[in-house]
Amino acid sequence: MRAATIADRALVVADQPDPVPDSGQLLVRTRAAGVNAADLMQVQGGYPAPPGSPSDIPGLELAGEVVAVGRDVERFGPGDRVMAVVGGGAHAELVLVHERTALAVPDDTAWDEAGGFPEAFTTAHDALFTQCQLALGERLVVHGAAGGVGTAAVQLGAAAGAQVTATVRRAELRPAVAALGAQVVGPDEFASVGPFDVVLELVGGPNMAANLAALAVGGRICVIGAGAGGSAEINLHALMILRARISASTLRARPLEAKADAARRVERQVLPLLAAGRLRVPIAARFRLEQVGDAYERFAAPGKLGKVIVLMDA
Amino acid sequence: MRAATIADRALVVADQPDPVPDSGQLLVRTRAAGVNAADLMQVQGGYPAPPGSPSDIPGLELAGEVVAVGRDVERFGPGDRVMAVVGGGAHAELVLVHERTALAVPDDTAWDEAGGFPEAFTTAHDALFTQCQLALGERLVVHGAAGGVGTAAVQLGAAAGAQVTATVRRAELRPAVAALGAQVVGPDEFASVGPFDVVLELVGGPNMAANLAALAVGGRICVIGAGAGGSAEINLHALMILRARISASTLRARPLEAKADAARRVERQVLPLLAAGRLRVPIAARFRLEQVGDAYERFAAPGKLGKVIVLMDA
Repeated sequence: MRAATIADRALVVADQPDPVPDSGQLLVRTRAAGVNAADLMQVQGGYPAPPGSPSDIPGLELAGEVVAVGRDVERFGPGDRVMAVVGGGAHAELVLVHERTALAVPDDTAWDEAGGFPEAFTTAHDALFTQCQLALGERLVVHGAAGGVGTAAVQLGAAAGAQVTATVRRAELRPAVAALGAQVVGPDEFASVGPFDVVLELVGGPNMAANLAALAVGGRICVIGAGAGGSAEINLHALMILRARISASTLRARPLEAKADAARRVERQVLPLLAAGRLRVPIAARFRLEQVGDAYERFAAPGKLGKVIVLMDA
Repeated sequence: MRAATIADRALVVADQPDPVPDSGQLLVRTRAAGVNAADLMQVQGGYPAPPGSPSDIPGLELAGEVVAVGRDVERFGPGDRVMAVVGGGAHAELVLVHERTALAVPDDTAWDEAGGFPEAFTTAHDALFTQCQLALGERLVVHGAAGGVGTAAVQLGAAAGAQVTATVRRAELRPAVAALGAQVVGPDEFASVGPFDVVLELVGGPNMAANLAALAVGGRICVIGAGAGGSAEINLHALMILRARISASTLRARPLEAKADAARRVERQVLPLLAAGRLRVPIAARFRLEQVGDAYERFAAPGKLGKVIVLMDA
């Protein structure tokens, strides 16, 4: 198979051996795969793949057709359209997916949207609902809302009946994020819109003091991106008075059972909305596998709305 | 009635009008009442009483006998032995307690222990179980374990089957804390005993970097005391990789329904252990109401094991 391959901290497209499905695994012929920040970090040597994932093929999410299955597979069979978060290896023509982490692609969902759905919507759903218990009528602010996870979180928050505020640095992207269901403001303006019950932090440490200052009693801050800096000064007295909580996580490092649990929650709570056409996967740009280097460059550049997608030949 | 009374940022014992029970309230003749850090802060003008509590009579917990009840009281009647966390006013001969926040004092529990039980054990239970979901077999560290909340947390953690480590600054207090069910170490030694699933932070910001460094994957830190400093530098990347959580709270500022909820959990989960003689309320010193100033001084000084108790005449 052809696969995006890391060699000397650069990305090339090379021939790799076809993977063989083991017990419980699906072999999926990839149609589309999203690019994520972890992919860039992995190419640069800063984020090695977890055990069980290819060390030299990046890619954390994909959609495609099942072409073979390993022993004891029960949920899917050849020809099924599936999408999934994987620990790595998704930017390749063939990918192994454990069936417990796979989601069925709804009939009306196009391949490019399906390829950019799993990581963003699973991450956003896990943060907002599993970690933060976002509830009907609560006030949510999403920082860095124009990206893949941000656009997913805005839509999920609005779908759950929360009052959604989104911060977007670039003014030209704000109308599109507003159309997903949020009141959109600049990063320095959100405090005047608060207080907030839930803060989804996709930017990093520099936001944390303002997040705490804009938090409601009983508020929850969830940090799932800290590209702008990992260090945060926290006022514990303020946190105590607010009876508040800060959680943080990544999806990639979780063991199989935790990834499967997150996927099953998305299947129950989010897939029906996708199938009903109530969720969109905004796509900023599409590239073919042979241009995967350009896709990563586009991802690294600012000013995108939604996902950068790598497409594979059928 | 006689009551500890704040006048010009000092504490005197003075005559105050007897309080009158309103709907749902018990009028309790105090037998014993614990001293807490919030009391000292209130005397110094730094922590005003919440609405509905006396502004000039400190005291957050007490035990005593019901002498009268307001309308619609269903759970207790005159003569009942009760103990409770209150928003203030406990360092007085008569105190108003909403019946939903009152706990029955077990028959075999002495007044001095009952007077020091509610705040410490409710705070510790809320932090360990409601906030941190401490579970059987998990590894817990309690910082500042020689105080009232600390000795309560060590005992509750051990009773729940957790592996309990306690940090105690003063070497002479360590054997007594160890006897409550913990492995006791100095504040600089706990990292080598970890990692920990739950960290109960009673000291403050200076511990937080070491707490995070000693935290297990999925770990929870709960901050309920920050007397040593409220500012903490948090590494968000580390928090993300650990999929960890920091929560913080105080008991006093909560609305009635939250205090009642916390009391009902203690009634179900902790009172049976107290009644069975499986929990102790270590008492560092006892003072009569007329010596309440001495009690506060003793509380403010270092080197105590457990509670400082103010006793009232029967």
